[in-house]
Amino acid sequence: MAAFLFPQHVIARKRDGAELTRAEIDAFVRGATDGSWADYQLSALLMAVFLRGMSAQETAALTDAMMRSGVVADLSAVGMPKADKHSTGGVGDKVSIHLAPMVAACGVAVPMISGRGLGHTGGTVDKLESIPGFRMGLSIAEYSAQVGRIGLSLICQTSELAPADRKLYALRDVTATVECIPLICASILSKKLAEGIDVLVLDVKHGSGAFMREKARARELAVALTGVAKAMGKPARAVMTAMDEPLGRTVGNALEVAESVECLRGDGARDLMEVTYALGAQMLLLAGAERDAAAARARLERSVASGAAFSKFRELIEAQGGDPRVVDDPARLPQARSRKPLASPRAGFVTRVDAMGVALAALRLGAGRARAEDRVDHAVGFSGLVKVGERVGRGDPLCVIHSNADQAQAEAAEMILKAVAVGDEAPPPAPLVGELIG
Amino acid sequence: MAAFLFPQHVIARKRDGAELTRAEIDAFVRGATDGSWADYQLSALLMAVFLRGMSAQETAALTDAMMRSGVVADLSAVGMPKADKHSTGGVGDKVSIHLAPMVAACGVAVPMISGRGLGHTGGTVDKLESIPGFRMGLSIAEYSAQVGRIGLSLICQTSELAPADRKLYALRDVTATVECIPLICASILSKKLAEGIDVLVLDVKHGSGAFMREKARARELAVALTGVAKAMGKPARAVMTAMDEPLGRTVGNALEVAESVECLRGDGARDLMEVTYALGAQMLLLAGAERDAAAARARLERSVASGAAFSKFRELIEAQGGDPRVVDDPARLPQARSRKPLASPRAGFVTRVDAMGVALAALRLGAGRARAEDRVDHAVGFSGLVKVGERVGRGDPLCVIHSNADQAQAEAAEMILKAVAVGDEAPPPAPLVGELIG
Repeated sequence: MAAFLFPQHVIARKRDGAELTRAEIDAFVRGATDGSWADYQLSALLMAVFLRGMSAQETAALTDAMMRSGVVADLSAVGMPKADKHSTGGVGDKVSIHLAPMVAACGVAVPMISGRGLGHTGGTVDKLESIPGFRMGLSIAEYSAQVGRIGLSLICQTSELAPADRKLYALRDVTATVECIPLICASILSKKLAEGIDVLVLDVKHGSGAFMREKARARELAVALTGVAKAMGKPARAVMTAMDEPLGRTVGNALEVAESVECLRGDGARDLMEVTYALGAQMLLLAGAERDAAAARARLERSVASGAAFSKFRELIEAQGGDPRVVDDPARLPQARSRKPLASPRAGFVTRVDAMGVALAALRLGAGRARAEDRVDHAVGFSGLVKVGERVGRGDPLCVIHSNADQAQAEAAEMILKAVAVGDEAPPPAPLVGELIG
Repeated sequence: MAAFLFPQHVIARKRDGAELTRAEIDAFVRGATDGSWADYQLSALLMAVFLRGMSAQETAALTDAMMRSGVVADLSAVGMPKADKHSTGGVGDKVSIHLAPMVAACGVAVPMISGRGLGHTGGTVDKLESIPGFRMGLSIAEYSAQVGRIGLSLICQTSELAPADRKLYALRDVTATVECIPLICASILSKKLAEGIDVLVLDVKHGSGAFMREKARARELAVALTGVAKAMGKPARAVMTAMDEPLGRTVGNALEVAESVECLRGDGARDLMEVTYALGAQMLLLAGAERDAAAARARLERSVASGAAFSKFRELIEAQGGDPRVVDDPARLPQARSRKPLASPRAGFVTRVDAMGVALAALRLGAGRARAEDRVDHAVGFSGLVKVGERVGRGDPLCVIHSNADQAQAEAAEMILKAVAVGDEAPPPAPLVGELIG
């Protein structure tokens, strides 16, 4: 039994800029989990951490304590290396949906636990819930068994995992302590490392549609994330990617699932597949399944070309009670009442498709949630989005708007017209996949 | 109706070092008073204020908003200038008890509202409650009427006054946000200025028995207190005083009342009267009752010599329902079961009587409260305490211990022996009353 530490003494130490001990961090996390610290004490310490920072060692201790606040899945019986991918969140980011079966088809198990969307970014859980019958609320026991059986699982966070994070995240949201690298780090990694994985690849985004708009700040986060994961004994690598325009050609839950199915058929948009292969290659490399990136990428391409990845996705849907016919007939996914092309007001080259603008337009249609209790409309969103650099004629569609309400459709159309710019010259190509960290 | 401000946006602004607007500060104080801000949001902002500070203007706005969170007494019908004194807290500090009747006897009304003791310092309320029957829980209406009638009132804080301060103070105590000058300033002044006074004198203490041990830090507080009071239109002056040894010769509630009665009879300890006259003179000066400090002091001395101050104290006790006979016969105050002199282990000069050490010994006897819900034993404490610079023989008493429990008496004796040092040479005299601020 650890000695009792008064919350106010721990708070005072961080307030004065000291490095907290493991025992102090444990007391804080235990306090968040069992309620022995009052919410006002938790939030005072969160603010002190925001303003005073945390060392790499403190962040690792915090991550570890938060991870151990709940169940840590034991996948040691799974006879394959286990890799996962986490994205810091973007617009149109459906990568997990097709990447997970691709990697699993290459012999590396993907035990993925995802979150719901909040704010402007979508969540993998909301997207997959558009598949009729698909169950994401598996217990950790069911999850472990399924990973052992088919090498793949895509479930939503359960109350068994990292309960301290759920408590602290809710408090951070209402106390202006969200944008803090040590706290972001501990929040992401405590959940991911509780999955029982061997290695982790991180997609750290920057740009107008990312949480961290500035590249330098995003890079700082990438360094912290990979450093802490390694300090906890888990090989990790971050891929820096740009999130200035939406990824792929769809935004919206069912529409993104349909686009992921296209990727698995070999018809994925160029930008979307570039990010997918970059992340997948690092997963295979870190897991020891391939020795170099080119070979890893070739193997992932073969998993698509051979149909193995496609079959693995069907297997996943069947395993979790969903209707597997959606992969052959995407019309079985929820459909919006109205589909209306949005005409370009002029001819020229697309110079900008602002990710944040498109995300807010999708929110207006009902595709996401502004608050945790909002309901999501799985059918609505945009398909056939133009990409930066493409040539359009006057009247050509900038996208197709899928909507269930006329007023929302009209407002979303206005928002897209503001988010998309068409000019006389094609912009210089901007790099999408950048530096590797860690 | 002011526009609604989201708490997290106000918190984020202070977190990022911005100067809060009057509207933002009002929203915070209203949130603390009506519960529209959650405790965890209040404490997050308190920590941000602690670490980011507040400008003089912000502190004045905070003080004003906290003062207006409750009743502001209207004493305009009282036909005398109205002055009060506030001490930042010390050991053996019974000054208010005899100073208030002295000043009132000089024709300046003293409408004093005091707090209970917490931690190592005693509170005027606890001391006066040792007088049988003495009621301190007057309503603001009763208080105003009494000030009009006898020019004097000594009551305890009511829930009508500055409720925002009560809420915030309780939170600060458990979130390590107490020692913050803007917050201390607003807490003290919001209550004092709600009394309806014209002028305020502050006794800002430094030294081992003070909340602010360092003189420089105490001076900073004095500058802030007087500056904010003036910004709010109230002339104010701070007297810097040393609090290294207890003030006077007693520590403990009834014992200190008895010592105050001695002061009113003209038999006060030299150090105690020096502080009393220094503060009282500034009250008369600021209130416009005298033109210079020497004349003010002489007038206060006459109020004692003539018996006018003594009579005023009797009048106060009668007005508030107490037994006035205690002033003639202090044995009517609560008496401890045991009185035991503590012998000096050696002969020499007293070189140190550590105020904090004596305070902790008094706490051990039960004279104070470590937690707000503790009960106070009015009878216990120390009398006849030696003073620094005095000569003692071996076996001479260092003090008399008044106790109601043998074990506590033995432990308190040990503690006093550690707090008092006797050496071969008298220490150089140290100044007690220092700089005037404001």
